[in-house]
Amino acid sequence: MRPILVLLGYQLFDDNWQKALPAAVSVEVFHNFTLMHDDIMDKAPLRRNQPTVHIKWNENIAILSGDVMLVKAYEMLMQGVEDKYLRKALQKFNLCAAWVCEGQQWDMNFEQNNEVSENEYIEMIRLKTAVLLGYSLELGAMLAGADDTLQEQLRLFGENIGIGFQLKDDLLDVYGNPDKFGKQIGGDIIANKKTFLLIEALQTAQNEQKKALEYWLACKEFDPKEKVQAITNIYDSLHIKTKTEEKMNSFFAEAFWLLKEMKIAPERKLFLEEFTKWLIERES
Amino acid sequence: MRPILVLLGYQLFDDNWQKALPAAVSVEVFHNFTLMHDDIMDKAPLRRNQPTVHIKWNENIAILSGDVMLVKAYEMLMQGVEDKYLRKALQKFNLCAAWVCEGQQWDMNFEQNNEVSENEYIEMIRLKTAVLLGYSLELGAMLAGADDTLQEQLRLFGENIGIGFQLKDDLLDVYGNPDKFGKQIGGDIIANKKTFLLIEALQTAQNEQKKALEYWLACKEFDPKEKVQAITNIYDSLHIKTKTEEKMNSFFAEAFWLLKEMKIAPERKLFLEEFTKWLIERES
Repeated sequence: MRPILVLLGYQLFDDNWQKALPAAVSVEVFHNFTLMHDDIMDKAPLRRNQPTVHIKWNENIAILSGDVMLVKAYEMLMQGVEDKYLRKALQKFNLCAAWVCEGQQWDMNFEQNNEVSENEYIEMIRLKTAVLLGYSLELGAMLAGADDTLQEQLRLFGENIGIGFQLKDDLLDVYGNPDKFGKQIGGDIIANKKTFLLIEALQTAQNEQKKALEYWLACKEFDPKEKVQAITNIYDSLHIKTKTEEKMNSFFAEAFWLLKEMKIAPERKLFLEEFTKWLIERES
Repeated sequence: MRPILVLLGYQLFDDNWQKALPAAVSVEVFHNFTLMHDDIMDKAPLRRNQPTVHIKWNENIAILSGDVMLVKAYEMLMQGVEDKYLRKALQKFNLCAAWVCEGQQWDMNFEQNNEVSENEYIEMIRLKTAVLLGYSLELGAMLAGADDTLQEQLRLFGENIGIGFQLKDDLLDVYGNPDKFGKQIGGDIIANKKTFLLIEALQTAQNEQKKALEYWLACKEFDPKEKVQAITNIYDSLHIKTKTEEKMNSFFAEAFWLLKEMKIAPERKLFLEEFTKWLIERES
């Protein structure tokens, strides 16, 4: 998705999107560096149905390969950026890269913290995932010579859809169609992952529901199906699905409002619009 | 040492060495990023007599802090480099950063490999430590407007002294003065670390000496003092100290020959010359 956003950001202003390919690759390499290090930190055994690098080889190789990938991301980005945009493209990349690391640290801190607020969660996913989508579009636009206002509007468009996508992920984990969703339904619930749904439920549950929620979160041995069903029932009675959808849709609405405001011919916007809608509709 | 080399490289051509301070800081931050990740990989409990980051906090924090430090190194480097040198300074930094990671991977591979050659060892320490000293001097010279030949001569000067310093480290571990050497004498011997001395001994030992060396390398339980004494005796009878000193001095000689060749007024070279000699004479 990220490299395509770089190309779509470029294509809004110039037809020669091939010129943005090295920059698009760079963003993807950076993203994969973060996945490789995150997988070590999360002790994840699988990624894209394959053993993760620290499992297939070892942890040291995964640390070091990630480090080199970050360096290679800079190298490729520089190859794809003309001198006149070099400093700006790299400065924004530096900011974005530091934010992504900060988001990952927040995410890990949240695991130990049962009083995460809705706003803190949104800020965490903004840093951890959304800013890179924003940067991808902004970078593509910059390389195609778009003016600063348009670059900024695209960055915000990307951040808003990024936050929306993460809320969609949180929803699919519980309410996805098991036949279409690639992963096990309820994986986040089983792992006590602090999703928007759980944070919302922890904030609104009262009395018996609060106790039940806390019981399941503290439970060390349980039947997974039973836990998923019990927590889903609590979510249902608290209308968590609707609340999450409302939140998610507010970010998508903001994004599409920004897209509408951009001073670009409507037919130029079609690709980005269609791609975004297709991502929003996805069921896995 | 590395930030001082940036400043000394600058001062060879221009008195306003303060202009090179952000670049000097950047190189030091990069170096500390590599130490932080290397300490995880080497499971090192102490660094500069303080608990390492992964021990004081945890491994995830050490991975992520290292990642951010690498990004911050780029950020500071960019702050310290004018537009006209930006691409070149960063391209060379990218190369150097990837080499340092590669050197660390070789170093780890060597732990499992008992047939490391002298040349492979020299190439490993060139990548792992020497190229960054070369880059530090080259960067300082570049920022002061030195021509390409001088930048290249300084880079090679730095690489040569870097390799020499590492051979000096290897020597001090065995033959250092216990009153002046900050660390335990024989630490590398106890840990079976593949230093230049051990590689040279493995290559030249014959018959009984070879057997004794292999016995001590395979020994799981031993009296540290006894092992250090036994291996030092083998080194002595094989004249390993002299061989290592000869090798080390050949790199220092090459460096000083390069320095002499550089088309810079001799009085300008004094600081760098004195600093290097002082580092060569150090006993800890």
